Amino acid sequence: MKIQYHLLHKEKDTGARRGKIETNHGTYDTPMFMPVGTRATVKMLTPEELEDCHAGIILANTYHCWLRPGEDLISKAGGLHKFMNYHGPILTDSGGFQVFSLAKPKDITEEGVHFKSHIDGAKLFLTPEKSIEIQNKLDSDIAMSFDECPPASASREYMQKSVERTLRWAKRGKDVHKNENQSLFGIIQGGPYEDIRKFSAIETVKMDFDGYSIGGVANDGESKEDMYKAIIYSTPYIPEDKTRYLMGVGEPMDIIEGVIRGIDIFDCVLPTRIARHGNAFTHHGKINLKNAKYKEDFTPIEDTCDCYTCKNYTKAYIRHLVTSDEALGGRLLSIHNIRFLIKLTEDIRKAIEEDRLLTFRDAFQKEYEHTK
Amino acid sequence: MKIQYHLLHKEKDTGARRGKIETNHGTYDTPMFMPVGTRATVKMLTPEELEDCHAGIILANTYHCWLRPGEDLISKAGGLHKFMNYHGPILTDSGGFQVFSLAKPKDITEEGVHFKSHIDGAKLFLTPEKSIEIQNKLDSDIAMSFDECPPASASREYMQKSVERTLRWAKRGKDVHKNENQSLFGIIQGGPYEDIRKFSAIETVKMDFDGYSIGGVANDGESKEDMYKAIIYSTPYIPEDKTRYLMGVGEPMDIIEGVIRGIDIFDCVLPTRIARHGNAFTHHGKINLKNAKYKEDFTPIEDTCDCYTCKNYTKAYIRHLVTSDEALGGRLLSIHNIRFLIKLTEDIRKAIEEDRLLTFRDAFQKEYEHTK
Repeated sequence: MKIQYHLLHKEKDTGARRGKIETNHGTYDTPMFMPVGTRATVKMLTPEELEDCHAGIILANTYHCWLRPGEDLISKAGGLHKFMNYHGPILTDSGGFQVFSLAKPKDITEEGVHFKSHIDGAKLFLTPEKSIEIQNKLDSDIAMSFDECPPASASREYMQKSVERTLRWAKRGKDVHKNENQSLFGIIQGGPYEDIRKFSAIETVKMDFDGYSIGGVANDGESKEDMYKAIIYSTPYIPEDKTRYLMGVGEPMDIIEGVIRGIDIFDCVLPTRIARHGNAFTHHGKINLKNAKYKEDFTPIEDTCDCYTCKNYTKAYIRHLVTSDEALGGRLLSIHNIRFLIKLTEDIRKAIEEDRLLTFRDAFQKEYEHTK
Repeated sequence: MKIQYHLLHKEKDTGARRGKIETNHGTYDTPMFMPVGTRATVKMLTPEELEDCHAGIILANTYHCWLRPGEDLISKAGGLHKFMNYHGPILTDSGGFQVFSLAKPKDITEEGVHFKSHIDGAKLFLTPEKSIEIQNKLDSDIAMSFDECPPASASREYMQKSVERTLRWAKRGKDVHKNENQSLFGIIQGGPYEDIRKFSAIETVKMDFDGYSIGGVANDGESKEDMYKAIIYSTPYIPEDKTRYLMGVGEPMDIIEGVIRGIDIFDCVLPTRIARHGNAFTHHGKINLKNAKYKEDFTPIEDTCDCYTCKNYTKAYIRHLVTSDEALGGRLLSIHNIRFLIKLTEDIRKAIEEDRLLTFRDAFQKEYEHTK
């Protein structure tokens, strides 16, 4: 079965959508935040811990799984779900983002992208067909079309040509995608240019994908304004019964602003990445547990948080762990940060249901920007 | 309450003892293996995971906790149990072993040991009184006397003098130990010298400690024979109603041989340390998951193992994690290795109850030394 998006409620004053996504691995509420499991593992955590955080879909990176351990191995293991023992739905990206951001230098041709492995420098070639083939073998619930991810700073001319090629790549990928149990999403690009986003959106939707992503908002250098533009220039052309996915976004305020503009699902490495550096999300902004002021703070990161970490550990203990390079520190912070973003989406869903998302946004923002 | 050792059954053909230890944090069966939580954390694991491994007493290192975060902080947190959220019993060592092995250079005087912190080179001074004071603040269930740990290669003359000083140190520590809820163990030293071990054992027992350790078997350079000698030269003088603890021992065969010679409890960093390097205990010896032969091995580390790791993950997946430097790999292996040693002690207990420990030893050894 392909995934099905069900729109349950549209907020009166915003573009926010309260929905449900039906997958072969369960039905989940949207808006949703998806934790990232780069190499078939959400760093440091078990699937049970993700479930405790109320995670729904998680993301795995096609590029990383392709290079190591390889899609054939994962296929032999019975697919990503069995390999990593995650029972919920899994989304794989196309590999494009990593090829463009991580595996420089590269040579972009009509056929695909030549690049060198970031692990051993081996010469590799990724094409739209190859990306789909890999994702098919990974057997994720949702696959992404292979796209170019030009930075927002790219010229209008480059962006237009890039979007046209991304459309041709999307078509090529779709033509070889035959897996009836895997959904395929199209990706809308176009940077901050209204007409190019519109063109990209209309042409991508014409191909009739199972869902649509808005890409090019999480490269280096995009401003919040660029992100808002990317969304509002794209969403009007996406059918209401299809999932809308903003790729690579995980800052709490960005999630709220994305939802307000009609986004259903988000992913980001932020909660686990900042955790490994000792940082925690709180309703009063991010805090760094290495800070000396937490040395004798025998309270949880947040009293009101229902995560495993906050129910069992103090800031003083976590500070001890992170300043001593004890892995449990990053693990406990990862749990808290993932739960924080997922809880945020739960609060957002409730606010949408009660048509008070803007009020929620204002209150959240006021608190979030008022660091203690 | 001080801990109470209850001897339930003494094996006919060996010195093996099946017993129970009653503590303020629960009653546990012996022989027992105690996982090591160096810096108030068993590396990578939560207390719940230790409980899932059926852990009883765990060990925390006084030296490490003293240096970071400091015993006063842990005391303010409500003691080690509250600080690290472990509900079972905790044993702290004296700090001596780390001072002698880790924090070189040192200057050993009658008063105590001068040394430099391995973290920042700060000059520190540890005395028998200070060790007890720190352990009191850590509020462990069992504290250890401060001892010198000379290597087995030390001369007879040095060993005799060292043991005499360790006895004076034990007395000084005992004199300042006033915590009615913390037990204090004496440590028997003497290297491989029968008369010195006997002297150390008799004199230490005269001081009437709550339990007795046999030290000096896990420095660098001790042979198995040295270890056996240390045990058999010491145990005859330890009262039957007191716990016997062999410090720093965790190789499966050494645990079995130690039990045969009358040891009740063991500790070692081995299961977690080798896990972080990709190794797993199996009944056919240690294996390294980085080995290419596990690349497509979609079976658990051991089919018969009841640990979380073996119930949920394949060797191929763990190999992927450890070769990709993903922390979950070391975590899953730590769980398996700790459970392996604890399960071994469960099997040992059953064998003692049925008076067949030597048969068990022979069968285990045959399998363990027959690597696949």
